Formats: sequence, structure tokens, C-alpha cells
Amino acid sequence: MPQFRKDPVADRWVIIASERAKRPGHHRGDGDRARASAAPCPFCAGNEAMTPPEVWAQRENNTLADAPGWQVRVVPNKYPALENRGDWMAVKNGIYESSNGLGVHEVIIESPDHAIKVLRAYRERMRALRADSRWRYLMLYKNQGEPAGATLEHVHSQLVALPSIPREAADELNGTEKHYDSTGSCVYCDIVQREVESGERLVSNTERFVALCPFAPRFGYEIWILPKNHAAAFEQNTEEDILALAHALKDSIARLNRVLNDPPFNYFIHSAPSPELARPHYHWHIEIMPQLTRAAGFEWGSGMFMNSIAPEDAARSLRNATI
Amino acid sequence: MPQFRKDPVADRWVIIASERAKRPGHHRGDGDRARASAAPCPFCAGNEAMTPPEVWAQRENNTLADAPGWQVRVVPNKYPALENRGDWMAVKNGIYESSNGLGVHEVIIESPDHAIKVLRAYRERMRALRADSRWRYLMLYKNQGEPAGATLEHVHSQLVALPSIPREAADELNGTEKHYDSTGSCVYCDIVQREVESGERLVSNTERFVALCPFAPRFGYEIWILPKNHAAAFEQNTEEDILALAHALKDSIARLNRVLNDPPFNYFIHSAPSPELARPHYHWHIEIMPQLTRAAGFEWGSGMFMNSIAPEDAARSLRNATI
Repeated sequence: MPQFRKDPVADRWVIIASERAKRPGHHRGDGDRARASAAPCPFCAGNEAMTPPEVWAQRENNTLADAPGWQVRVVPNKYPALENRGDWMAVKNGIYESSNGLGVHEVIIESPDHAIKVLRAYRERMRALRADSRWRYLMLYKNQGEPAGATLEHVHSQLVALPSIPREAADELNGTEKHYDSTGSCVYCDIVQREVESGERLVSNTERFVALCPFAPRFGYEIWILPKNHAAAFEQNTEEDILALAHALKDSIARLNRVLNDPPFNYFIHSAPSPELARPHYHWHIEIMPQLTRAAGFEWGSGMFMNSIAPEDAARSLRNATI
Repeated sequence: MPQFRKDPVADRWVIIASERAKRPGHHRGDGDRARASAAPCPFCAGNEAMTPPEVWAQRENNTLADAPGWQVRVVPNKYPALENRGDWMAVKNGIYESSNGLGVHEVIIESPDHAIKVLRAYRERMRALRADSRWRYLMLYKNQGEPAGATLEHVHSQLVALPSIPREAADELNGTEKHYDSTGSCVYCDIVQREVESGERLVSNTERFVALCPFAPRFGYEIWILPKNHAAAFEQNTEEDILALAHALKDSIARLNRVLNDPPFNYFIHSAPSPELARPHYHWHIEIMPQLTRAAGFEWGSGMFMNSIAPEDAARSLRNATI
């Protein structure tokens, strides 16, 4: 069973998940990668038996679960970082704190040109997991390309349900609450307003969503996508929102692909923690991070980032790209 | 001039350093790398004119500065993330905070088999920079191997002087102070004692230093090296300490090289911030992070780490390696 462990000094948790060492191609290295690509793809139609049984799918009428006919298919991760088994048990042993690795780890398997259905899958699975009061935070992310940490080439996303609020989300929540207490407004609403007015870091601006290069990006060409109307949680998206978001997300990724020649990237959704969805100070958003350079000794040691691409320059290139 | 910028939500600073985009091979990609390796190495003896003039060197008698005859040579980074120019000026523009990128960015250029001299160079440059009251934190780090972020193959380390205490260091300082307030002891002294007693995560244990896999490692085969006698700052190392540390560091890296086949890695020194060196609750140490897998969407989005190698297993392999 995996374990959560806390660093005894810094407020930093890790998941020790030895089972994951068994997954194909998980080690950096061309040999592993080549072996993994020669094997049949467990995420392709026809190979459904290679994954655990599906928990959700958008599929054609009259097709069976765990058989072809789907456009998006959600399955438990075969090599999960966390397991949904037993009760949460914190253990304190002298200076060391740990707990059993209780959680959910799902894979959202995509097929090409179905961005709307993929985003709908995100929303439906987040709604389903949100109903379980054991989960305080839902972390939806995508790793695309081997240098961005993907161990399988077939495009997919992952959803992890956590029993506590992780550090980055907690930091954002603290920041938003502080801003709300001192100004009475949502800091992300203020960012959207400021960026739409100035335009210098805008990538795209449509009726419902704005895509922008943030003022202090960790990585070159980092893009955030935010709803223009205040909404704390991703699950609050209506069908109309999902359509507009699919458009905005595809647009941003097409621009990255054009400017950076199909870069490896990570994206993730930051959304309000459970159970309070309707927070006046929080505002869900997507952060997209191309992985052109790596975090290295300076970044790991300091928690500060060196970025050689100013967001104003990145936004100009992305805005002007012909897609 | 580079800039420090603060994220308007999270407590996260980045350095926007556009000059660094000009350095050779800074973009991930085989083309760039190949071009960079075909060029003459600016760090090799004989090519001293390719770097800015040296600020420190350990060199043979009767050799001239910026000429061959050195074993370790310290120069300003030609593509610095920060610049030592002018005064520190914080700018607040609505929701956005920034400041000029004031700091120092040096490169410690090594030659083979001179670990003692390299560690001495670290200490001497840290002592020299510590004397300047503008610097609150000195971040010494090494990136070895392209997947760990090194843009030049010639072995080197880097030293950055920062006008403020960065997030990871601040987190550690808070954690150590909290532990000290509640127990009266240094948490790192407690870790050393516990790990020496149990032995299950020990890599090596000599008179002055212990190398161990930490209880909650972010990366597989992560190693920390700590002095067994309490010392808050790296600059407090005596000549005898430096000799013993060189032995411990070479031993740990030889074990990593044996078990993981010369992995790319980062290491950094965490040391007490200026000006108070003699803190009872802080304890300097080195953290070594092999880069076999990458931080990806989950890690960036959550600040939590998934690690598929338990430190007890990693330590056993490292301990048993024949070197």
C-alpha cells in the first residue's frame, strides 16, 4: 500500500508508491522508452482488457463497457499512486509523520479531436469524486510528451483525489483569502480585469475565457486560462462553458505547438477544495507549462524560478502565431 | 536588467532574466546540444578568455589570473540570472510586485579529482559574499548532466547571492524554529540521531558526516549529507571538516553512479541565512537529487511528490554498492 510521508522540517508531503516502479517506461532512458513503444498501447481501442475496468466513458449507443466505441474512457490507474482502500490512519513515530496512501488515481484516456468530451469527462469525474466526503482536493493534470513526464504516448490526463489540501493549492487559497480580506475582491478577477485592460500579456480573449501569460511565470511560455466570470470550482462549468473552454484550450495549445514546435507540456486545473464550492475569493483556472527547460538545482534548492522568457515577449509571439 | 517578480496569489518569486536566453544549449533539444558540444569549451584550461575575469582561483604558484594552472576557478556567470548593479528597488504596480534583479551569480569551474579544492572554493566564496550585507541568502548548487539542467558538460557549480530568503529556505527555517520552540533541540540533530540509531536509511556514517536517504524524499535515491556536530552554516567548516566532507560527498556520488549508472543529478547546499550564522535550530546540509524521473503535472500542480522508490530500499542498494 502506498504511503503519504511528511518531511520532518519543511511542510512538504510525498507519496511513496513502490508499485509505480513497475509501470512501463517510468525510468528516464531511451532503452526503457523503446521497449515501451514496441509494446501494444493499453489505451488504444481494442486493448480495453489491458486496463482495469472503466468507471466512466462517453461511448456510442449500443456499445459495451470495456469494448471499443468510446471517445473518452476513464479507468483506475493500473499503477496507482494512491489506493481507495480502508480508512485514513495517521501515524506519528517520533519526528516522522505518515499515513496510508488513501486516495483515488484515475486515467482519462482520450481520442483525437474530442476536447469537449474530454473536458466533460473531467467535470463528471470531479463531480462524482466530490460527492465522497473523504476527498478534500481533486488534482486533474495532463503530462504530454516524454520530457514532460508522460510514460505512455497515447494522449491522456489523470485525476487524483487527495484526503488533504496540498501545498500549492493551500498557498493559492491563503493568497486569495488575504487579498479578499484586504480588498473585498477575488484576486483572479482582478488579474483578468488588469490583463484584459493592458493586453500586454494576453494570448486570447473570448466571451467566456481569457488566456494569458502570467506576470510571474515559472516556465517560458507558461499560459493560464481563466473564466471571465467568477467561478470557484471547475465542476460549476455549464455545457456552454465547456464548449467555450474547449475552444480556448485548443487555441492555446495550437499556439504553443506553432511557436514552440509541439513542445512537451504539463497542464493542471486548480479548483476550489471540497466541500465549499462557492467561494467568493477563489477562482478556478488551468495552468499550462511547456517543458522546454528543466527545473534544476537552483529551483529545487530555493523554490524560486529562473525564467529567461519574459511573459510579455511570450504572449506577443503566441498572440501573433498563425494557427 | 533582470527582474524579480512575485506571483500575485501564491508566495512565489521568479527571476525574469532574458539575457540567459542567449546562452548556448539552454533550450532542451538535441540540435542545440550538438551545436553546443561542437564549440570549444569555455570552462577548459586555455580558454580562460571565453569567460569573464576570475574572482577567485586555486592555482599553481607563479601562474597568472585568467591563464592555465588552476584546479578550481570562480568567474561571474556570463549569462547571469541576477546582476550586482545599483540599489535594490521594489516596485508595486497595482496587484503586481517586482524589483530589479539585484544579486550575484558566479560559476565555480572544476577540474577532475579536486573535490576538496571545490568545497574550499564554495566556502571561500560564501564567506566573501556573506561579508556584503545586501545578501540575505547564498544558494550554492550543481547541475550535472543535461537532463538535470546543465547547459555545459564541463563540471561546474553555481553560487547565487539573493537579497531575500527564498521560499524553500524560509520553509525549512520556519520548520526548524517550530521544532526548536517545542522540543529545545535542532530537528536535523534529531534526524541524525534517529537515523544513525535505526540505520535503515543510512548510506554512510563516518566520524564527522552522515549520508542518508531522507524519510520523505521527493525523488528516487535522494541523499542528504549532514554534519554530525551541530553547525548552522557551511562557512563554519574547518579544513578538517572540508576533507571529511569531500570524502563523504565523493562516496555518495560514487554510490549513485554505481547503482544508477552515472545518473544526471542536482545538488545544493542549504545553509543559515545572513547575518546570523550561529543559529541553535538550523543545521546546514547538502541535498542530492538524482533526476531519473521528472517532476510533472501532479508535482507542479500540488507541490506534493510521487516517488516510486522507498528511501529504505534506495539506502540499502546504495549502502551495499561496491565502489
